[in-house]
Amino acid sequence: MRNRDLNFEIIRIVDFIKTMIKNSGLPKLIIGLSGGIDSALSAALAVEAIGKENVIGLMLPYKDSSQASFDDAKTVADHLGIKYHKVEITSMVDAYFSAYERDADALRRGNCMARMRMIVLYDFSAKYRGLVVGTGNKSELLTGYCTQYGDSACAFEPIGHLYKTEVWEMARILNIPDVVINKKPTADLWSNQTDEQEMGITYVQLDEVLYLKYELALSNEQMLKEGLTSQDLMIVEKLYNNSKFKRVMPPMLEEID
Amino acid sequence: MRNRDLNFEIIRIVDFIKTMIKNSGLPKLIIGLSGGIDSALSAALAVEAIGKENVIGLMLPYKDSSQASFDDAKTVADHLGIKYHKVEITSMVDAYFSAYERDADALRRGNCMARMRMIVLYDFSAKYRGLVVGTGNKSELLTGYCTQYGDSACAFEPIGHLYKTEVWEMARILNIPDVVINKKPTADLWSNQTDEQEMGITYVQLDEVLYLKYELALSNEQMLKEGLTSQDLMIVEKLYNNSKFKRVMPPMLEEID
Repeated sequence: MRNRDLNFEIIRIVDFIKTMIKNSGLPKLIIGLSGGIDSALSAALAVEAIGKENVIGLMLPYKDSSQASFDDAKTVADHLGIKYHKVEITSMVDAYFSAYERDADALRRGNCMARMRMIVLYDFSAKYRGLVVGTGNKSELLTGYCTQYGDSACAFEPIGHLYKTEVWEMARILNIPDVVINKKPTADLWSNQTDEQEMGITYVQLDEVLYLKYELALSNEQMLKEGLTSQDLMIVEKLYNNSKFKRVMPPMLEEID
Repeated sequence: MRNRDLNFEIIRIVDFIKTMIKNSGLPKLIIGLSGGIDSALSAALAVEAIGKENVIGLMLPYKDSSQASFDDAKTVADHLGIKYHKVEITSMVDAYFSAYERDADALRRGNCMARMRMIVLYDFSAKYRGLVVGTGNKSELLTGYCTQYGDSACAFEPIGHLYKTEVWEMARILNIPDVVINKKPTADLWSNQTDEQEMGITYVQLDEVLYLKYELALSNEQMLKEGLTSQDLMIVEKLYNNSKFKRVMPPMLEEID
């Protein structure tokens, strides 16, 4: 795995956030707090950049979302000293599924929830004149482990170039509460879901494959020599290829800019 | 204004749509029908590409949406012979604003509606295994006359490289019903809204500025000589500059792909 100075990365990210704010002309940053480490770290960096009084957190639970996740999000907000709002998305989500699509499966419901959260975050960004802070990390973005136009929707990605394993390390440097650092990552779309179980690979292994394959451009043969398994390679390649569409603007016949 | 063979463009677009479908491995195209010309043309091109039995239209009115727009959307669906569904977004939208943000202005409400429509389109795309067809044209995309993560959310943009004035011309070639071609373009976000009134410029003038400025890269001086007014130039430049963020992926410190 790559080994870089994360203290320097913190300075670089804080500077990046300041530039984003300056270019936008807007005073605030809006961030959805899931209780997970990615949003906790992104919020901490936002606070470093423009001060706690200019960062607004949002907790956006569905009726069967985990109470523990909400509590963790609150712990993060209190720890950082930022204001937060709680907006339940239950009635918005149920208004659709109860009336039209009662039989929708967990994946469809989960994607709808992620997009409803986007709607509230963007509405708050209009209300408070703020930018919506992205919380995606590189491991997640390269595997497409996010909902298009949902949790991946944002004004900029402060930690989009950090692998999940770097997120953990940087979170420790920035004194994110232990309870958030130590828990199993979950998209929280259903009970007891964990990212690693769903992807079929641990983040440590995933990051190793991503780094060797897409950053160092090693061949499969070389990666097997490095101790990776062919199953890990297959899982990651599939996730990467199937999620390409999430990393680009919708294609059209002629580029515009 | 540029003058190109729109019959040839139709062939090119139909081919593009076929490629998108083939690459996705999905059998259907899902398209929101607003009653306007962009979605009508996009739907007609979708039908040309993969057949009317594989295109699904969606009408997504809010309680105070224009009945005439709905009727026009129905006219388009019937004319093309495609199946369509009507999903009212009223309860989804009101569930949020009534409970949390009663004082939100028309713009915030309009953006929320556009995003709720996206949610339904994407949920239908999951249900029917389809791609969501974009309906944005070049005039709209270059001025940002669309809601980010709302009506601009799609799998691909079949008419994203066509100016609005070309959309009108192509719609005539493809025999889109006159009632749709002849009406004033409107985003239908509030009563009697028209695009041209809101932007402060007609589409004919807008397209002329966009073409001369961004395609031919003429100087302001040259454009004034071509008969454009400095007010038109100012309006377009401002719209263009303020909407750049809508035409790119969220920025991050290091590019990934």
